Amino acid sequence: MDATQTTSPQRSPLHDFLAPDSIAIVGASADPTKRGYKAMVGLVKDGYKGTIYPINPKADMILGIKAYSALADLPGPADLALICTPAASVPGLLLECGKKGVKGAVILASGFRETGPEGAVLEQQVLDAARQGGVRIIGPNTSGMFNLHKKVNLLALANVKAGDIGFISQSGNMLLSLVLEAEHNGHVGFSTYVGPGNQTDIGFNDYLRYLGEDPHTRVATLYVEGFRDGRRFLNVAREVTATKPVVVYKSGSTEQGQKAASSHTGALAGSYAMTVDVLRQVGVSVVQNSDEILPVAEGLGLLQMARGKRVAVIADGGGQATIASDRLAEAGLELAELSETTRQRLGAILLPQASLVNPVDVAGSSDARPSLLANCMEIVAEDDNVDSIFLVGMFGGYNIRFAETLLGDEMRGAESMIELAQKTSKPLVIYSLYAPIRPPALRRLHEAGLPVYSSLEHAVRVLSALGERGIYLAASREHSNAPAVTPDSQVQALFAQAQAEGRDLLEFEAKALLRTHGVSMPAEQVVRSEDELKEVAASFGDQPLVMKVVSKDILHKSDAGGVKLNVHGEEAMRKVYAKIMKSCKAYNPDADIHGVLVTPMARKGTEVIIGVMRDPIFGPVLMFGLGGIFVEILEDVAFRAIPLSRHDARSMVEQIKARKILKGVRGDAAVDKEALIDLLLKVSSVVDAYPQLMELDLNPVIAYDDGYAVVDARIIVDRLAAKSKDALL
Amino acid sequence: MDATQTTSPQRSPLHDFLAPDSIAIVGASADPTKRGYKAMVGLVKDGYKGTIYPINPKADMILGIKAYSALADLPGPADLALICTPAASVPGLLLECGKKGVKGAVILASGFRETGPEGAVLEQQVLDAARQGGVRIIGPNTSGMFNLHKKVNLLALANVKAGDIGFISQSGNMLLSLVLEAEHNGHVGFSTYVGPGNQTDIGFNDYLRYLGEDPHTRVATLYVEGFRDGRRFLNVAREVTATKPVVVYKSGSTEQGQKAASSHTGALAGSYAMTVDVLRQVGVSVVQNSDEILPVAEGLGLLQMARGKRVAVIADGGGQATIASDRLAEAGLELAELSETTRQRLGAILLPQASLVNPVDVAGSSDARPSLLANCMEIVAEDDNVDSIFLVGMFGGYNIRFAETLLGDEMRGAESMIELAQKTSKPLVIYSLYAPIRPPALRRLHEAGLPVYSSLEHAVRVLSALGERGIYLAASREHSNAPAVTPDSQVQALFAQAQAEGRDLLEFEAKALLRTHGVSMPAEQVVRSEDELKEVAASFGDQPLVMKVVSKDILHKSDAGGVKLNVHGEEAMRKVYAKIMKSCKAYNPDADIHGVLVTPMARKGTEVIIGVMRDPIFGPVLMFGLGGIFVEILEDVAFRAIPLSRHDARSMVEQIKARKILKGVRGDAAVDKEALIDLLLKVSSVVDAYPQLMELDLNPVIAYDDGYAVVDARIIVDRLAAKSKDALL
Repeated sequence: MDATQTTSPQRSPLHDFLAPDSIAIVGASADPTKRGYKAMVGLVKDGYKGTIYPINPKADMILGIKAYSALADLPGPADLALICTPAASVPGLLLECGKKGVKGAVILASGFRETGPEGAVLEQQVLDAARQGGVRIIGPNTSGMFNLHKKVNLLALANVKAGDIGFISQSGNMLLSLVLEAEHNGHVGFSTYVGPGNQTDIGFNDYLRYLGEDPHTRVATLYVEGFRDGRRFLNVAREVTATKPVVVYKSGSTEQGQKAASSHTGALAGSYAMTVDVLRQVGVSVVQNSDEILPVAEGLGLLQMARGKRVAVIADGGGQATIASDRLAEAGLELAELSETTRQRLGAILLPQASLVNPVDVAGSSDARPSLLANCMEIVAEDDNVDSIFLVGMFGGYNIRFAETLLGDEMRGAESMIELAQKTSKPLVIYSLYAPIRPPALRRLHEAGLPVYSSLEHAVRVLSALGERGIYLAASREHSNAPAVTPDSQVQALFAQAQAEGRDLLEFEAKALLRTHGVSMPAEQVVRSEDELKEVAASFGDQPLVMKVVSKDILHKSDAGGVKLNVHGEEAMRKVYAKIMKSCKAYNPDADIHGVLVTPMARKGTEVIIGVMRDPIFGPVLMFGLGGIFVEILEDVAFRAIPLSRHDARSMVEQIKARKILKGVRGDAAVDKEALIDLLLKVSSVVDAYPQLMELDLNPVIAYDDGYAVVDARIIVDRLAAKSKDALL
Repeated sequence: MDATQTTSPQRSPLHDFLAPDSIAIVGASADPTKRGYKAMVGLVKDGYKGTIYPINPKADMILGIKAYSALADLPGPADLALICTPAASVPGLLLECGKKGVKGAVILASGFRETGPEGAVLEQQVLDAARQGGVRIIGPNTSGMFNLHKKVNLLALANVKAGDIGFISQSGNMLLSLVLEAEHNGHVGFSTYVGPGNQTDIGFNDYLRYLGEDPHTRVATLYVEGFRDGRRFLNVAREVTATKPVVVYKSGSTEQGQKAASSHTGALAGSYAMTVDVLRQVGVSVVQNSDEILPVAEGLGLLQMARGKRVAVIADGGGQATIASDRLAEAGLELAELSETTRQRLGAILLPQASLVNPVDVAGSSDARPSLLANCMEIVAEDDNVDSIFLVGMFGGYNIRFAETLLGDEMRGAESMIELAQKTSKPLVIYSLYAPIRPPALRRLHEAGLPVYSSLEHAVRVLSALGERGIYLAASREHSNAPAVTPDSQVQALFAQAQAEGRDLLEFEAKALLRTHGVSMPAEQVVRSEDELKEVAASFGDQPLVMKVVSKDILHKSDAGGVKLNVHGEEAMRKVYAKIMKSCKAYNPDADIHGVLVTPMARKGTEVIIGVMRDPIFGPVLMFGLGGIFVEILEDVAFRAIPLSRHDARSMVEQIKARKILKGVRGDAAVDKEALIDLLLKVSSVVDAYPQLMELDLNPVIAYDDGYAVVDARIIVDRLAAKSKDALL
């Protein structure tokens, strides 16, 4: 039932060839312009300890290593083959790999699916050949891979340092970019890199699982253009993020959603916003800009997670204190409200002109004693109102800016910060103007595992990621999913009938389904002839009513004149009934009219929309937002993969920008948030129970200060399932 | 009439002391921990050519320069005095300065207005003392100043290079930050820096005018926490931006707007959003993050402006092409649609797998010949659909990544780019992964005046600023303001009466005012007794009507039961009239009820709001947005300082995020944008004509596909003006 929480106890098979003891280079070359030369050079220069088998029919030796004319000639099996030859040669080579016991092959060639139908056929041949011999494939169309702890540098990158950041990237340039950044930073290094290429065999989820298990990887980072199996990725990510940070940069943030969709929810399928939401749901740290990948990964790898979003800022200048506050607020973080005790303790060590209200501005107090900043950090770290500590300003550069004699005190300050970091459970995030020129105190911090950021903006991203991950980990301990629902036989019959008739559920059927599973629904009756009106009118008493046509053939009920609001009394009902029948028949003479649904007018309240679609990438996804322009124009909606936990449901209500409206504006009462959360969980359970349910739209649901009213419900049935069932019968 | 376009022909008096030939250092010291030492050292080390007068009663010589015990002892006048002594000493010293003919004084001490009422008194004494002797004041509470072309380095900053960026900053740390960034960048340098401090005498507008005139300054950059006289700043900025780029970073982007305001417009006064809008209105390049100041200033100083927002991207990797597209779209820029010719020409030189649709991805074509990228840039530069060219990827690093032998071709590529930059009128913005390690081709580009960015995000900011400035300069050539309006004597009488009665204009008076000045208004009549109803009913015929109480004492008409919609026919009107009178009298028995306004119901359409307030910082400012939640919850509004040009009016309608709604959604017709623009211009003219008008709210205005209806109008009268007039009588 619970597809997102499957566990996979067995060890990833990728270890066998991502940390290979022997490597065959198919297409090895002594020509420096060839890719088959680069790999050889990378292995040899870096001092790879395993066996290298150059394969080249025209050479006996390459770079002083014995070459073989074909895979078949190798004296023994190879863990990994790097295939540098053109696309057409690959299927044949993979058959040879299979025979020789090669466990995995990196296929560099392009010219497959990405080039059109012919390429796709070739790619299928590649996959078939690989499966036949049990060879796993990296690529094709990949930039390659490296495993620096094993000294497997197949990309022959210079100046790349072994470290604890694993990276999977659909762009080779992005790897280059991070490697150059890391070289510049001087402190971070990489464990394993893989370019997944076309993901023909191995996909992001497999690589992520590998990085999750890899002892050399402390943080897994990914540059993703597109997932092939997003659902499995979410499952794996949920497992990995429980123990390791996972940082994802997803490109395509401005791509248009799919146009041809049958509901509002559908129109937003596969969107960037949905991808970000479901990744965050499983604990992934999503960064918005590519230059944030490395700083955020470094911070998540080295620092404590924050329990919450309340940041204490210690600054030695008013300007940067203000800027820090701006960026924190923009990132959804809060300035911690310092306790009276904290302010008194700060006041006791700072000059009178210092600002003791967060952001704390020491205002010159540290000019002659920079280590005072460390003392301030110690004080705020003890404040229960503080979740993380942010040092902003010139630390590390006092000896340059003011007097060389300050170096000693600055080094003492650095030592105090290092001790504090070891002692406290709160993260210390440090931004310094002087970071780019690496003065001694900052070098010392870095070496002790306290990164110093040279960009205030990046430091804020790190704070944000630490807070998000801390909150996620705490919440995931109490992640209980929506209770599973047992499919109801009558509901199953409804679906079967709709499928047999090749239609979707009628409005009253969709509502009945939800009512069956505990969703509170307004009273309603379907009137099938004028004769029934008397009794129905009596049953609703004095309330103003809505009357709506029920017909599988009339989708746009209002356009057909099939909806009338504010109907009072039996006489009016009779008139309206006749009117609806007449105008619907005029609208579509062939329409099969099931009847007219009668229900009380809903009170005024706040319109929200709840939608569900089965996304081709991420599977069933629930959408929540405010109705009307909020979803249609502003696209201010939240997504979560189904099943939802209570935390997920709550967080989606709190995520939308228009949440202010739910709290009540212009004197309106706040809506009953708990009732909405319950409704979201019930919808999640229902969707999980009925695979026949393709899409669902509750639009609008009117939220009140005491509960809600589902005014319209639409459920789209999986027609394909029906057809295949037909075919089976 | 036209306050924003006043010209100031005379030369700024600041030249006299910001480029001084003699400097007195009051509080000069031989003690390295003192500020009075730093300034001496800075001047001496940098080789200042003018005369230095150290002032210190306890020393004969300081750093080998003859010292004087008091300003009075100087052998001649000094252009500039740097006052390093405490706050209390300053008024007396300024009197001495005045006597000695000092033209300007830099006052470092804090302890003035920023500390409370006592400090404010001292600050006034400082100003009085300065005015008495004709001394201009920088500060107090300033970080100081430098003029590197004159070798006046009063801050004693090391490694700061003379260049063409002028900087005014309310934060000393921000100066340090930029100086360190510039040192790191290696190519940019500074002309003059000033910390305006409390702006007691000289404000941002004066400094900006100086930088505008300074021949050493090519780009003026400002870090602003708050303006003291925003209106004057706008006037000066409009002048300066006509010839020089002005880059502003404004902190406080998340501060809450003023709470206690008497209208929706008022509630948004002084907000960050307003500040950004009015700065952009006068051509200022506003950056959102502090780390964008220097890259944007460098780009604006060196590159051509773009005619529009259509960018051609040339990339050598798909990943970064996608990321570039994302960032461009987020920044409001467009991917140019390349002409058929351009695509053919690109196709002729690139490999088949290259993507010829913007973003152009050469897909390996340049691996063995990086200069091909320059050829691609040449081709797209000739396309009329392209406004700017963006190179993204590895250029400069091919010789490192692929083969050292590529260096020659890469240098040739750089030369071609330099030639192209000289030839074309379109900007070339270059981002390279290899920028941080400065390979030869990139050094060459930089030296030839083509900056190479190491952050894709920053490069996009630069493209955005070049486009904005290009569009601004083109539009400003045709900037004609809203036509001036001659105040009408009857309207003047309305104001006078309202002021005399201590009230605001009544709704029908506000509408009459607008009607007088050509704003199209629905027909309406004010009924003052039941007897008039018959005739009024007849005059409106069959239309459904609205009836609203008219009373200066009833502000919230609906709460008082003073508004009735959808009134049909004379009989109903009589009932409603009586009802309104009754409930309004019940609501406020003392209310002076002027009558009841009768007007036809407005048709349904799109609600917009137009507001005007006199901002304490920026003077009269017009606000435009969609009504209801758009203004109240989403704060999706645009601001412009009055008077507006037609370009301003148009740009505000196009700026709001909800502009989609104005184009028609759910099958609605687009609203008549030209009619709205005319209305905005008319409101601008009216506000300019009547200084008695304090605030104006047209809320809502209903916009149609043919014109608009002003449903409610409110004009708040300047009561103070009335009072002072009374006082005069």
